[in-house]
This record gives sequence, structure tokens and C-alpha cells, in this order.
Amino acid sequence: MTFQDTVTTEPTLFFASDNGAPVHPKVMQAMADANRGMAMPYGNDPLTAAAARQIRDLFEAPEAAVHFVGSGTAANALSLALLSPAWGGVYCHPLAHINNDECGAPEFFTAGAKLLPVPGAEGRIDPDALRATLAGMSTSVHTVQGAALSLTNLTEIGTAYEAAQVAALAGIARAAGLGVHLDGSRLANALAASGASPAEMTWKAGIDVLSLGGAKGGMMNAEAVVIFDPAMAREFELRRKRAGQLTSKMRFHAAQFHGWLDEGLWLDLGRHANAMAERMRQGLGPDRLLAAGTGNIVFADIPEAAQDRLRARGALFYNSRTVRTSEGRPACRMVCSWATHPVDVDAFLEAVG
Amino acid sequence: MTFQDTVTTEPTLFFASDNGAPVHPKVMQAMADANRGMAMPYGNDPLTAAAARQIRDLFEAPEAAVHFVGSGTAANALSLALLSPAWGGVYCHPLAHINNDECGAPEFFTAGAKLLPVPGAEGRIDPDALRATLAGMSTSVHTVQGAALSLTNLTEIGTAYEAAQVAALAGIARAAGLGVHLDGSRLANALAASGASPAEMTWKAGIDVLSLGGAKGGMMNAEAVVIFDPAMAREFELRRKRAGQLTSKMRFHAAQFHGWLDEGLWLDLGRHANAMAERMRQGLGPDRLLAAGTGNIVFADIPEAAQDRLRARGALFYNSRTVRTSEGRPACRMVCSWATHPVDVDAFLEAVG
Amino acid sequence: MTFQDTVTTEPTLFFASDNGAPVHPKVMQAMADANRGMAMPYGNDPLTAAAARQIRDLFEAPEAAVHFVGSGTAANALSLALLSPAWGGVYCHPLAHINNDECGAPEFFTAGAKLLPVPGAEGRIDPDALRATLAGMSTSVHTVQGAALSLTNLTEIGTAYEAAQVAALAGIARAAGLGVHLDGSRLANALAASGASPAEMTWKAGIDVLSLGGAKGGMMNAEAVVIFDPAMAREFELRRKRAGQLTSKMRFHAAQFHGWLDEGLWLDLGRHANAMAERMRQGLGPDRLLAAGTGNIVFADIPEAAQDRLRARGALFYNSRTVRTSEGRPACRMVCSWATHPVDVDAFLEAVG
Amino acid sequence: MTFQDTVTTEPTLFFASDNGAPVHPKVMQAMADANRGMAMPYGNDPLTAAAARQIRDLFEAPEAAVHFVGSGTAANALSLALLSPAWGGVYCHPLAHINNDECGAPEFFTAGAKLLPVPGAEGRIDPDALRATLAGMSTSVHTVQGAALSLTNLTEIGTAYEAAQVAALAGIARAAGLGVHLDGSRLANALAASGASPAEMTWKAGIDVLSLGGAKGGMMNAEAVVIFDPAMAREFELRRKRAGQLTSKMRFHAAQFHGWLDEGLWLDLGRHANAMAERMRQGLGPDRLLAAGTGNIVFADIPEAAQDRLRARGALFYNSRTVRTSEGRPACRMVCSWATHPVDVDAFLEAVG
Repeated sequence: MTFQDTVTTEPTLFFASDNGAPVHPKVMQAMADANRGMAMPYGNDPLTAAAARQIRDLFEAPEAAVHFVGSGTAANALSLALLSPAWGGVYCHPLAHINNDECGAPEFFTAGAKLLPVPGAEGRIDPDALRATLAGMSTSVHTVQGAALSLTNLTEIGTAYEAAQVAALAGIARAAGLGVHLDGSRLANALAASGASPAEMTWKAGIDVLSLGGAKGGMMNAEAVVIFDPAMAREFELRRKRAGQLTSKMRFHAAQFHGWLDEGLWLDLGRHANAMAERMRQGLGPDRLLAAGTGNIVFADIPEAAQDRLRARGALFYNSRTVRTSEGRPACRMVCSWATHPVDVDAFLEAVG
Repeated sequence: MTFQDTVTTEPTLFFASDNGAPVHPKVMQAMADANRGMAMPYGNDPLTAAAARQIRDLFEAPEAAVHFVGSGTAANALSLALLSPAWGGVYCHPLAHINNDECGAPEFFTAGAKLLPVPGAEGRIDPDALRATLAGMSTSVHTVQGAALSLTNLTEIGTAYEAAQVAALAGIARAAGLGVHLDGSRLANALAASGASPAEMTWKAGIDVLSLGGAKGGMMNAEAVVIFDPAMAREFELRRKRAGQLTSKMRFHAAQFHGWLDEGLWLDLGRHANAMAERMRQGLGPDRLLAAGTGNIVFADIPEAAQDRLRARGALFYNSRTVRTSEGRPACRMVCSWATHPVDVDAFLEAVG
Repeated sequence: MTFQDTVTTEPTLFFASDNGAPVHPKVMQAMADANRGMAMPYGNDPLTAAAARQIRDLFEAPEAAVHFVGSGTAANALSLALLSPAWGGVYCHPLAHINNDECGAPEFFTAGAKLLPVPGAEGRIDPDALRATLAGMSTSVHTVQGAALSLTNLTEIGTAYEAAQVAALAGIARAAGLGVHLDGSRLANALAASGASPAEMTWKAGIDVLSLGGAKGGMMNAEAVVIFDPAMAREFELRRKRAGQLTSKMRFHAAQFHGWLDEGLWLDLGRHANAMAERMRQGLGPDRLLAAGTGNIVFADIPEAAQDRLRARGALFYNSRTVRTSEGRPACRMVCSWATHPVDVDAFLEAVG
Repeated sequence: MTFQDTVTTEPTLFFASDNGAPVHPKVMQAMADANRGMAMPYGNDPLTAAAARQIRDLFEAPEAAVHFVGSGTAANALSLALLSPAWGGVYCHPLAHINNDECGAPEFFTAGAKLLPVPGAEGRIDPDALRATLAGMSTSVHTVQGAALSLTNLTEIGTAYEAAQVAALAGIARAAGLGVHLDGSRLANALAASGASPAEMTWKAGIDVLSLGGAKGGMMNAEAVVIFDPAMAREFELRRKRAGQLTSKMRFHAAQFHGWLDEGLWLDLGRHANAMAERMRQGLGPDRLLAAGTGNIVFADIPEAAQDRLRARGALFYNSRTVRTSEGRPACRMVCSWATHPVDVDAFLEAVG
């Protein structure tokens, strides 16, 4: 067996993760285009400057600092470190990626801040719950000090916040003196679902720092952190270097963003992934659906027999640790991506029966 | 100006850094080849397994754990965190990258270990100095506890350790109970310079953990950590995730290594870069040379007028903060890469006059 | 006003905290007795050795390592750092002191471990809830890894665990591979309430590391950490020094413990504090009581008018952030100490009316 | 053997450490005086306020924040954490306590700052070396960022800085944008040696944060941090709590300071300790002395035979790891304290011969 033989050929029914999708050809092309000649390393090259400018333009944020890192976990954890001291509290939904799926990266990067879950239905923080929690926030030296609110859009269960919902929550947080972070690892899907502009969903709604995800949406391994208050930019750069996230050949991070953002590709890809999920939701029918997502993630109550049938045909999907059926069994979680084809969805639905 | 217009066209005389070189076409091709279909994310894909296997084979280390990360700084800092507790001391050369050029990443990842410089001529730790230092190492609870030795090969000033020199230093360290790390961000150049095999230069010489660098040698943004004692592998995986270095589309890190290592390309590229530097050394002549490197880095005493002439022609190189001329002026530091062409060197030499 | 004039004279009705009590005269005497001549610092003195031996004897744990620190927060946080890596999860009751009242000290000392609340009535972790939580514990690299269970006895709301209850919870935790910590800042009260021996309540019940509190029980500023598995002792000593908790004149920490433990004084003082609380509970009557404590803390539903009356007479007590009346108002929280006098309780009860 | 039998009776010739001395009777008395009635814990008591006021008065610093902690290591490490971010560099003398004797506490409390030694004769940082070092300080994102200068007075080898010397070094540091910390674990000895006032030696000389040591000077286990810029006070309080240094019965830390500072006792004790050392220096004669200290520490070249004779008589002193004889043997290090008696010194001298 040679190395090439090990390249994964497309599973028939891959719904395990949008991270399993390949890189979009336009992103690959932008990387190839960037691979010409010498360039100053560590972001001191014109491509990096151009991609940052492109993002500032897209978000209508001419003053924002834009920096690239290599993973969504790093983007989130570095962003939170800007907003919370080591003795800070970071409010988030119990299901948030930062709370469950990053092996404590936020605690590591902040040197020990505490994530404080605030509940809410369908993956969204409930404004009343947030208001009540912040009203009871202590400034006693014996407790961690409320520092930041972190929202996720799309949420972890595929629901979207509308821009107005983000603004409401951010407003509550800012009134309490907190900074506000948005985990946008699926921001493209959220924007596609809501129709809001990038600016409306972020700084116009009160977001201070945005993790702008690319890998789940068709890029390879670049994420951007958009810091709407540039006063925090220098600290970010030092934290990024110190975290081993200042990649030397930065032009390739930049190129990925260029290829992905150009001509609205990112939103097209997000719209497509959402549409594939919607096709699956339609096919499954309302009785089987769990969680009311409009994004690219589907939770459903699928009988064991049907699950066996799916897996026998090579389907890949997870049984959820967080969303459960009315009888308490783990829901089936299917994630669509930019690379999901309608025939894949249809084959899945057919196997479900 | 469009985005494409900003792509850096090759400067005539780029010797600022081997990180400024483009990605080797075979590496690009391997990434393109890997971009087929779906693949399980986070390293649970066959390409990642194959690339790890390839590295184990190359290092004749069937038990070693091999994990990929996104930067050399991360590779080093995560490696050191395996070898040193927070209260540990890590011995290294004063000029080591971990000591000067990572903004405290080793301290961050180890939660506060202390780097303890041990001097030595030409960028190499002096065995007698190491022996004396370790002989005086205290186990008092009031001091940090000696935990690890970190070597760099090529050193920061372009000299190479022979395998026997690595073994001598590692032996002294191991006799004192220390673990041994090798920063191999330019290991290919060191192997090319010395003729030793990968195994001879690493585990056979007493190295416990290796940072195997790729970016400086022609890759894009992947580095490998080779853990010769697999008992540390699980901790490494947790630390990697927590550090935001577990990239989701891992197959592209793996593919880079595949393209780079296959058929000895990495050593060919290292050999080429060394040869370009040797061409420059020959052209400058022994009187101008500073530091006795055999790798891809050249330090020289170049008169101000010649420096001005070079820069006027677009030459990019640094004035060193560490290597100085006999009169105390900063040396000129020129780094060659896999992409350096003989005509570049000759043009440089001609401008020096 | 001279300095002496500022010495707090006894408030009539001080129930704010057992930390507000003075130091017991026998503890003061032991410190005075220790203040003779020179002694090797940092614990290398015979008094420190003797006090450690006394604690080992008392706990029937001849192999245990015993080390002194300066605060309960430090004792807890250092203990947890022995049991949990930075990427570990520490299960505790939502009301635990480590979770609410230490400004993130456990996160600081562990370099970022995550506290994971497990609910239960009356301040005690529910065994079924713990069992269910640990059954769902993931070993995925994406999540923190379950590392330790931390119990508190007395609990934060004044209830006591019986030794059998501690053993049941510790058994569940150990079966899942966790270490077990006991926050014993009020262990004397718990032992007095339950009648168990120190050994029965700790290592015989499965406790690995104990924070043995002194300040709340009549000491001045010393706490002990009892490490039943001495293999962890060396790491503890290094962590203690690094945390600034290795006091130079250690003999005075030791002397405090000697004075406090000798002839069972600590248990007598705990019994007295519990009895004063019981006197208050009897006086208030079951209808007013909230939480079913048997220790030295009382929660009660006291009408606003009575609260005003109490405060007008100088009473000091807190309105609880955690225990609430059936109507949702904060409960009144009264803490008795070794120095509480029956007439204080009676005066309080009289003012309540 | 009972506990009391283990109390160390005075060694004849104890010169191992000033930390080995007992607590001065006036300090003990102040603690006994404070042990009346109830007091609000955690520093919310009138004694703590009074002691802070006393220190502010003594330092002519009405705006300063004064906070008590339990060890010199904690005082230093918390102070540095106010002045340096995790990615900061802290310049200090190679022999500084923070660099050698705190097991990495500064790195722990700052979350990884780097100590950067600046040499100088006789334990004092050389102004020219500092100036040169700071002139070469890089602001590149690849290196730690110069953040603070930490001075020690008395130095580790018993020499004193004059106030003008402190001012000169602090001036150089402040001009480079650094904050300045003074480790005053032996400040009383330094003031006694130099005749400067507390204010002249600290904020008037450019010190931002002072660790004011007590244990070595006759106290039991309290140290003060004096923060001349009160804007940093809130952060200090949170860091202190989080570090387990907010002792509950704070009135006893305060009382120690009251007893020690009142009527200039601290300076009298420092003067006495210095005088005892001077008596020893006179007795040993200039030919045997090493390091030109004027404080309470003596380094001398004592022949092996005389060392044996001393130890046979029960003398306790250390062989230095840092100060050496002209032949390279470790110097003998003798530390005098407030409790050293002239007859002790004379007995020592007699044994030396």
C-alpha cells in the first residue's frame, strides 16, 4: 500500500462533521496562487495585509484588528483571554463548544478563568436567565469576577441567533460591564440562516471580539480573530505568538480567507450546507426532529433498526451526548457541509425509511 | 489593486529567512491529492496514520508516537511540557529559539518552567559547562528542579551538532535524570550537514522528544512531534488539544509531511539550502565569515557601504542581535532555503563586491 | 486613637463567621511556648516534625505526609493540584467553597482544571447523581478528563456527611479512577456531629488528600494538608514552596496544631460550636429552620422586622446567596464558633422574638 | 518525649538564617493584645485598617494601598504579577531571591513571565549593564516584553543599596517604561545601614511596589505589600485571594506589623542585626571577608579546620553556592538576626581562631 492508497475516498453517507469535508477548490486555488516567490514571514507580507483588509471591509469595521490563527479552539481561547483576566468569569451556554469541546483551552489561555453556564432553550442563552445571573453577580473578592459573555452562532445544536437576539444578550452583558465574544465557527451558516450582514451580527450587535471560523465552512486550517476594539490588538499579537499560533508562512492562512470570502463564496457555501440540512429535515419530517435548527446540523430520533441500516451502508453520524429523544435516548446528529450532495441526503433518507 | 496583485513576487535577493520561501511543489501536490472526499477529522483519518507510520519508519522507531501541530513554537513548547513540570528547569543554549524567539511559549505551555542557559561556543552547548552546571544542580525545595535539556540542531547560528556531540550532551543530561528534547526546526539541514541518519541523530543519541520542523524546509504549516517513549503520548494529545493545536482537517498536515519526506526530498532540500549557504561562504571568503556554520545560515562582517549597496538592490537580510563582528557591530545574517537559487547567491556576492 | 484602641471589642451578637472568633488560649500558649531560641526555618525544626507525627498518630496513618500551609484556600487548591492535571475535571457540589468562594484558586493552582458541579440535597452530593455523571464521563481528547472528587465536611450549609456517606461517594469516584479530596475546614465539627474517628472519616473512607482546617476551629492561621499516599509528598512540597506557602518560621504553624489537637481540644471546640448552633436551632424552632444542619451553621427564615431588631442590637450575620426561604428570600445565616457563648445565642433568640 | 520537649533550645552558634530567630516579644504581645473578642475576617477589621494606616504614615504615602500576606515569596510574586504580564520580562540581579530561591513562584504568579538577569558587582545591579540591556530590549512580538525591574535591598549577599543607587536604577527602568519592584525582605537592615527614610528608599526613589518583609526582622509570618499606585490595588486583592494569601484572621497579621513597627522597633532590630554582623566582620578581619556587606550577612573565607571546629561546637552556617573564595571554594555565610547576642558572635570568633 502506498501513501496515496490511504487517501480516504468519499464515504457514501458522511454526516459525522463538517470538519470532514475537503477544502473548497477555490481555497486550494488561492493557496496555489499565493505560492509564488519569497514573502516576509509571520504576517509581514502583503497577502496577509490584504486579507485583513478584506475582512475589515466585509464587516464594515475599518478600525478592527484582524489576525489569523490555526484552529477554532485557538481563536476562541485567545479571544476570551482578551476579555477575561485569570480571575474572571465567562458566561456561556452549557452546550457551548468552549465549555465542552476544547479540553479546557479557555482555562489554559486565560490562566484559569471560570466558565459559568447560563441556560436557555434550543442552544440559545435565555435573556432572562442571563439578566438574573448578572443581577446576582458578586464583586466580592472571594468569587471570580464576571468578565465576559461568549455566544455561539450557529449554536452547538444548529440553531441560529437572529442579530436582534445577539444584540439583546450583548446589551445585557455590556450593561453589566462585560465584554462580549462571538464564537463564529459556523458564522457563515448563521448569516445564511438569518440574512443579517456580518456587521449587523457582530459589532453592531455589541460583539467585541469575533472568532471567524473557516475550517468548517470549506477552508483548510485558518481562522480569523476580528477585534473590533483595536486597543486590544497588541496584546492579542503577543498572546498569539506565545501560544504558538503565529504561523510563519502566514500568507497561506491569508490566501485561504481570500479564496473563501471572495465573491461571497463563504455565504454560498453556508447556504448550501444549511439547505442540505433542510432537505434532510424535510425528509425526516417534524415528528422525528429534535431541536429546531435552521443551520447545517440535524438532530433526529431515528429508531435503532434504521441506525443499524444506515451504518451498514457506511453512514457516519454521531449519537449526541447532549440532545436526547423524548425517551431519553441519544439523538442522532447529522452535520451537512459545503460538500454534501443532495444525493447523499437522499440516500440517507432512503436508508432511514 | 486586486488581491492577486498583492502576491509577493520574488525579491531578487531574499535572505531574510527560510520561512520566507514558498511551499515546495511536491508538498503542494500532496495536499491537493489529499483533498478528495470526506475524512474523519482531528487525525482519525488514514492519511494521518500513514504519515505517522512513515515518520516512525524513517526514524526506525516503531514504538514512537508521532503527532502533528501547526508551528515550531508549538512543537517545542508542547514537547518541553512533556519533559518538565511547572517547577522544572530546562537547560538550553543562551541563543536557543525557545529562550529568545518564542515570546515565552515554553513558560506558557509548561505553566512556568524556567529556562536555564548553558553557554558554549558557536551556538553549541559546551559539555563541560553542562557537566558543571548539572553537578551544581540543587534539589532543594527552594529552587526549580532540573528537568530537561533542550538542544537545537542546526543551532540558531547555523552550526550543526554531530550525532556524537548530541549523544555526549544527552548522556550527561540523562545521567543527571533529565529528559532530552531536540528542536529540529532545521533537522534536515543538520542531517544533510552531518550525514547521520535520523535515528542516529535522535533516539540513538538519547533524545526523548523531537520537534521535527517542516515549514523552514519547504512545507507550509505543519510540524511533527516525535515522542520516542510512547508512555507520554496520551498526555501529549490532551495538551495538544488544549493548546488549540489539534487541527480539524489533520489530513493536510499529514499530506505535507508525506510530500516532504517521500523519496528523501526533505534531505535533498536541506542539502540544497546548505549548499547555497556554502556557495555564499566561499564567495565571501573566510575573513568575512563569523560563526563557523555548515548549515543554511551565514553570518558575515559586511561593510556598511556594501550593506547599503545590497539593500539598494532589494536584498533582504537581518543585522544580528547575537553574532557580532570583532569590532562589536551586528553581523549580517543571511539564510538560504530550498528555494534559493545560485544566481541569487551570485547576485548577492557581486553586490557585496 | 492609639493602635490598641482599635482592637475590636466583642460584638454582642457576632454570628457572621467562625473566622471572626479569636484564637483559643491554648493555641496562643503553644505559640508562646514555641518562641524559644533559634530553630531551623522552613519546617526543618523538631516542632514541625512533632506536629506532623501527632497528626499521623491521630489519623492512624503512619505513612501519611503532613504539611502545613497558611490558609484553607491554599490547602484546598494545593490538594487539588495533586489530584488533577491542568486538563482534569474536579467534581464537587455546586455550593462547594472551592467552586464559589476562592476566586478561582483551584483553577490557578491546577493551571486550569475545571470544576464540575454534581448536585445533591442539603449540601451533600447525591450518590446517584455522581454515579450517573461519572458513567457519562468522556475520555475523548476534546473534553477535560475526570480526575478528582472533592467533598466538603461539614458542607457549606452546615450539614455533615456520615463516614459511610463519604465512603459511598469516594467508592464511586475511585471505581471511576478518580482521586478523592476532602475539604475539612470544619472537619472537627463534622467529626463531632457524626462521632466517627478521624481515620474513619478520611482514608478508611477512601480519601486521598485532606485539607485539615484550623482557623475556623480556634487556630490563628495554619492549616494542614494530610496526604495519605506519601508518593505525592515531594510534588506537594515543591508546589507549596512555589505558591509562597512554605512559611519560614514553620514552628509556629506546628505549634498552633499542637495546641489545638492536644487532648482532643479541637473536637471539644467543634462540639461546643455545634452545640451553640443546636441551641439556636432549638430556640428558633423547626418552622423557621432551613437546611437540616447538625453542625455549627444555622440557616433560618427570620422576618425582616426581626432582622432589623437584631441588627439594631449589633448582631452580625449574613443573608445567604445560596439558601433561600420558601418564598425565595435569602435565608439568614448564623455561624457559631468555639467562642460563642450561650448568652450570645440566648440574646439572639430573644431579639428574634 | 512530649511535644514541649521537642522545642528547640537555643543552639550556641546559630548563624544559619535570620529566619531561625524567634519572634520578638513585642510582636508576640501585639498578637496577644489583638486576641480579644470577635473581629470581621479577611481584613475587614479595624486592626488591619490601623496597621495599613501606620505603614502609609511611615512611608509618607497617604494614597498607597497596603495589603498583608503570609510569606516573602508570596509578597514578591504577587508584586511582580502586578507589574508584568505573562509575556513580560522582569530584570533582576542573577543572585536575586526571586531568581534562585522561590522555586519559580514569580513564574507561577505571573503565569510565565521571564526573569532576565542583569549583572553587577557585590549583589547590586550595575547601572551601565542595566542601561545597555534595556537599550537592546526588543519589542518584537517574538520576544518577551520588558515589563519590570526588581531590586533587592539588602541584596542577597548582604550589601545595601543607597537610596540614590535605587533611584538611579529605577530611573533607568522607568525611562524604558518598566515598573519597579523592591524586594524588602530585609528593608529594615538596609534602612539601618543607609540612614535613608522609608520614603526615600522607596517611592521617592521610583519604586512602584514594595514587598515589606517582617519574618526575617522579628515577626512571625506576615509580610506587607505596599502599592504606591493605588490603581493596582483591586487587582492585587483578587490575586491575593486567588493565591490563598487572604488569611481569614487578618488581625493577627496586622498586629504583628503594629508590634514590629511601633516606636521604630523594626529599625532598632535591623540596626542590631547589622551591628552583630559588623562585630563578626571586625573580628574576622578584612583578609577573611568576602563581599563588602554592611548589613546582617557575612561571607568569609574560613579554613576547613576552623569550620570543623565551629561545627563541633554546634555552629550552624551555610557554605554559599554563590559567593566563593579566591580559590573557588564556597564561602561561609553567617547571618545575624535581631536575636543574635554579642556573646554568640564572640564565641564564634573564638572558635574560628
